[in-house]
Amino acid sequence: MSLYPSLEDLKLDEFVKAQNQIIQQNDNPPPYMAICPPHPSGMDQDSLGAMYPILNDYMGVELSTLAQNNAVAHTFHDIPSYVTNGVRKLVLCKDSKGQVGLKLSTFNNGVFISVVIQNSPAAKAGLRFGDQILQINEDFIAGMSVDKVNKIFRECSVNNINVIVRDRPLERSINLYKDRAGHVGFQFKNGKITDIVKDSSAARNGVLTDHQLLEVNGQNIIGLKDKQIVEIIAKASDMITITIIPVSIYDHMIKKIAPSLIKNIMDHSTI
Amino acid sequence: MSLYPSLEDLKLDEFVKAQNQIIQQNDNPPPYMAICPPHPSGMDQDSLGAMYPILNDYMGVELSTLAQNNAVAHTFHDIPSYVTNGVRKLVLCKDSKGQVGLKLSTFNNGVFISVVIQNSPAAKAGLRFGDQILQINEDFIAGMSVDKVNKIFRECSVNNINVIVRDRPLERSINLYKDRAGHVGFQFKNGKITDIVKDSSAARNGVLTDHQLLEVNGQNIIGLKDKQIVEIIAKASDMITITIIPVSIYDHMIKKIAPSLIKNIMDHSTI
Repeated sequence: MSLYPSLEDLKLDEFVKAQNQIIQQNDNPPPYMAICPPHPSGMDQDSLGAMYPILNDYMGVELSTLAQNNAVAHTFHDIPSYVTNGVRKLVLCKDSKGQVGLKLSTFNNGVFISVVIQNSPAAKAGLRFGDQILQINEDFIAGMSVDKVNKIFRECSVNNINVIVRDRPLERSINLYKDRAGHVGFQFKNGKITDIVKDSSAARNGVLTDHQLLEVNGQNIIGLKDKQIVEIIAKASDMITITIIPVSIYDHMIKKIAPSLIKNIMDHSTI
Repeated sequence: MSLYPSLEDLKLDEFVKAQNQIIQQNDNPPPYMAICPPHPSGMDQDSLGAMYPILNDYMGVELSTLAQNNAVAHTFHDIPSYVTNGVRKLVLCKDSKGQVGLKLSTFNNGVFISVVIQNSPAAKAGLRFGDQILQINEDFIAGMSVDKVNKIFRECSVNNINVIVRDRPLERSINLYKDRAGHVGFQFKNGKITDIVKDSSAARNGVLTDHQLLEVNGQNIIGLKDKQIVEIIAKASDMITITIIPVSIYDHMIKKIAPSLIKNIMDHSTI
């Protein structure tokens, strides 16, 4: 079994789970509790992969995610702070202005999320900078322009927008440990890593320069001032997880996004 | 527990395992079988993380790997065909010419493997294009030049060269399924993905253009003719795993490597 499921694996999984559900329903009434033990978060996870998923209301957004093979797919309550590269399925809705809360960009014929607007349905569904949108309802998104994808979102109904994304394919996470002075061992300017301290945790673990810091322990720090980022790192425990992307790709993804938008309305909430 | 262990996790793990071993040795003699069930490959896996690892002779190379947290570390017998981004520890030796069999390059202050020479100790240890070298014996490698790292290898003893690498941090794997015509849905020229076929498996799973094909089902295909790559894909089963890297990074990594070297002496063996 491979680490990264394909979309076909997701579909197959849905089919198998739906079949199993039918079998179990016939064998073991009442079926609901038998196949859907309550999740600690209060959400119903086992049913999420079934053919007719039970939609989960959460602060106005209806969520549905699929855990598949070893790729980690999560509900909003336990989205990991590290990059999985896995495929994830969720259900979006629109806010009162008819928006899902995303700004998109294209890169190498893929459509990526550049901005997730704070408190939007997209933010509540756990979408992030760098997620690649693979499918919206029945439309496969590869090769489309941003305008075309925005048009698809506009034409969607207010609720039940089925979206399949790949978790940040161009990014990666690295765990670092603070030394006695509280340093992890890299310097940065405008969020861009410029220097690695010799023999530091960053050096030992292979942090690279010319990479943009995107997250610290899962918190989006794009557009924050360096001073704010330093504070976030200082407040964190001895082990921190950073998420990075090559600067060349980062620059491409935000080149059409107004800096004020990144600074003021991008979701920077902690998980 | 996070997906990606840091080097510190590896060290801690070694310490904990060594402690556990001592405890188990005291409690349960004879300890060897109790803590080291035989691995299907015939190699001794559980002992590999102990403080005094048992070195495993394999065709002239002494191997030692560490499985840590969720990051997959493997012996030569079960190295996965997908990118894990995890940290791996192994023991290299030199061949009769005093070579480990690597050509290196630097990228963003990291040292990466550009060529693994066929039948070399490095090939037998399962090193690959794009692996980042973090440590050789007691030396941390970050920020070093290729000349400096080559000098370190030259000065190493013939056996017992301890190396820590991060598994291909700039690459990723994608699973694809063939359609009825046997196509996965992308076109390529000189191994570079140029076009994605609409609604194909490649499109659905988010394959990007301007990415270089590095592996098909774990087999290095760098420098092979496109016709050969097509044949390898055609012979594979319905599900294939491709490993890719952005072309800009690939071009940087091979720019100082002679094309003849890539074509003729790079390791292209199947696993």
